[in-house]
Amino acid sequence: MDDNINLIEEAYIAAPLGFKANGVSAGMKCSDPANINSDTPANNYLDVALVASDIPCNAAGVYTSNLVKGHSLVRSIDKINKGDKIRGIIVNSKNANAAVGKIGVEDADRVASAVASELGCSSDEILTASTGVIGTRLPYDKIISVVPELTKGLSDTPETSHKAEMAMMTTDTIPKEVSAILTLSDGKKVTLSGMAKGSGMIHPNLATMIGIFTTDADISSGLLDKMLHKAVAHTFNRVSVDGDTSVCDMVVILANGASGAVIEEGTEDAELISEALESLSLDIARMLAADGEGATKFVEIEVRGAASAEDAKLIVTSVARSPLCKTAFFGMDANCGRILTAAGYSGAKFDPEKIDIELSGLPVYKDGCALIFDEDEALARLKEHDINVLITLHEGDFSDRMFTCDFSYDYVKINGSYRT
Amino acid sequence: MDDNINLIEEAYIAAPLGFKANGVSAGMKCSDPANINSDTPANNYLDVALVASDIPCNAAGVYTSNLVKGHSLVRSIDKINKGDKIRGIIVNSKNANAAVGKIGVEDADRVASAVASELGCSSDEILTASTGVIGTRLPYDKIISVVPELTKGLSDTPETSHKAEMAMMTTDTIPKEVSAILTLSDGKKVTLSGMAKGSGMIHPNLATMIGIFTTDADISSGLLDKMLHKAVAHTFNRVSVDGDTSVCDMVVILANGASGAVIEEGTEDAELISEALESLSLDIARMLAADGEGATKFVEIEVRGAASAEDAKLIVTSVARSPLCKTAFFGMDANCGRILTAAGYSGAKFDPEKIDIELSGLPVYKDGCALIFDEDEALARLKEHDINVLITLHEGDFSDRMFTCDFSYDYVKINGSYRT
Repeated sequence: MDDNINLIEEAYIAAPLGFKANGVSAGMKCSDPANINSDTPANNYLDVALVASDIPCNAAGVYTSNLVKGHSLVRSIDKINKGDKIRGIIVNSKNANAAVGKIGVEDADRVASAVASELGCSSDEILTASTGVIGTRLPYDKIISVVPELTKGLSDTPETSHKAEMAMMTTDTIPKEVSAILTLSDGKKVTLSGMAKGSGMIHPNLATMIGIFTTDADISSGLLDKMLHKAVAHTFNRVSVDGDTSVCDMVVILANGASGAVIEEGTEDAELISEALESLSLDIARMLAADGEGATKFVEIEVRGAASAEDAKLIVTSVARSPLCKTAFFGMDANCGRILTAAGYSGAKFDPEKIDIELSGLPVYKDGCALIFDEDEALARLKEHDINVLITLHEGDFSDRMFTCDFSYDYVKINGSYRT
Repeated sequence: MDDNINLIEEAYIAAPLGFKANGVSAGMKCSDPANINSDTPANNYLDVALVASDIPCNAAGVYTSNLVKGHSLVRSIDKINKGDKIRGIIVNSKNANAAVGKIGVEDADRVASAVASELGCSSDEILTASTGVIGTRLPYDKIISVVPELTKGLSDTPETSHKAEMAMMTTDTIPKEVSAILTLSDGKKVTLSGMAKGSGMIHPNLATMIGIFTTDADISSGLLDKMLHKAVAHTFNRVSVDGDTSVCDMVVILANGASGAVIEEGTEDAELISEALESLSLDIARMLAADGEGATKFVEIEVRGAASAEDAKLIVTSVARSPLCKTAFFGMDANCGRILTAAGYSGAKFDPEKIDIELSGLPVYKDGCALIFDEDEALARLKEHDINVLITLHEGDFSDRMFTCDFSYDYVKINGSYRT
């Protein structure tokens, strides 16, 4: 990574100047406070998060490609597309605010208005995001009732930022937060932070995943939009947990300019920020895959030597989605026939007699033929938490990679009983 | 069904005149005969099947769309495409004879030659099929050593036909055999039988699935080919267990003419046979889905009112592949948001605000909005073994359906440790 990008050890979303965050409980995750004690993980009861800026921000977003879109999301897309200046984003977990009809947009408006009146801004300046169960009306009254507590508790400390992250989490088991300080060409420093929630129902493009970035650099909406699209293309959009893409999800970036550093398109500084955004996105993408529902393995699928970018993408996607490959990773079974099979039905064009496959560095196929390999050695490599699958096609110069995880008993358990 | 199509209660592949079948053990499923006793299910040790005709047959086939194809399969495609008359098909389980290079075709030739010399025909008249692990050389010597026993035991009784079916089975738990007697326009009768193996790695087109049909009608290869393609399109090609398509698999039909009834294209009799072939294929397709690896539910996904056939297919495929929908079926969770979500990312075009969803007859979505429904009633319907999902788009007149099953703990268990 560029020497001018320095990761902050304790990452938090309010690290950039002028940002604050908080997370509180509206009783959606846990309706009885008596069930909460000092041992209860905060992500088990915090369910409403707010990230706010003291001054209006430029904003950009990338959204799910699902034809069905949640109402909180549709409302946010509308605000960002209109070019509204943004003061904050409120996120709730447990309820997706999706597929409930016109009332869903009205409920999101109600929540945004409550936040706006506490922050003293227009409700158009507040973005909304919801993640959770589809088809049940948003308990907007519960959320609104905690908005005063939520806004009063806003701070720029790591503690309240972590609470915001905890409040977004659903089946996630670990928080996903990243921060970096960037040194610009004139020596000035700006800060960039990101946080995300993910876990199941994750597949390009986006899925049940909410990512929020903040920066105190001054960047136009148009440039932010370009940077964000570039950053997600091979990071957030290359994570697959189960191949399902959700209706609610997005990555947004807010830039408030509080550092005083103005970033112009085409400059070295713009390049640096773009690189940092992609790098932090990659860190989060890996965290999302590794924390996939029930995951016991982090798996990176890489294709090299494809005849086209599309072919490379088809194969990494096909292998990352294959339940047979994913259960074999869980079973630590060097069952490369399944990888070959998934490549074969991906729709990509290649000569099966030229394909090579390596499993965490161990060659298992050469020229489309299975090699006889040391099973003990293969098992030792598959016992590692991180597994790498490298497929080389010898057809051209295109490559791609996808981050995924295995399919375990726990995936079935978590998803066989999520709603109830 | 047409009155002239009468199912036979005890179905078996050698029911049509002039066909014989048998299944034996070559020690691939169970290497130590001491482990076999009278309680051992035959599919746990029988591993080589033969279906043979006394007289040469016309043949047609439909094959996996996977770019990678097994060697036994490639050899069979070659024989059928050349228009060779066919005397029989030998099938082995436990080994896919795939991805081992040129030697794989030679091994399949060796096995075919051994059968041909016992039957007194050319090896070009013997088709080969293999299903099982990819990338390990076919133990052709083991198979060849039992060919004399296999051919000597050929008979037209149900018993040896059932043995043939058992020998094809891998992770299947129930045999899949169908037979019908068809009454032609002149009162003559012909018989049509089918058997199949399937279970995991099943998804259109074809996958780890082998289907064999036999008939004593006299039908040209060209007409057989048309009938078979029509029959599989909405039956075998609408079964999805895990979305994976295998490299080895096929459906073939052998017609030996032993009944003396000649079927000409464009006649009422051809129509009857075509209808029967599609109907028996549908029965097998349902059996394949219901016996999916680890399945506890049979699920039929139906789309009506799509703007195009392609849109209807995209949606049924997307829902049938979705791990989130499939784990919800396993959990008997009326989580229709996941169905809506899978429809939304299918790539089909529709207005999300016009979509209706019924779950085993219970309306759960109307005009894209979730309905409030009786959860106890929903649970009662989901407790049934057979579940029906009906998605109505109100966009046009096209419909499609797909047969699938749920994703259970056992799916993960079976596939986390299949190869070892």
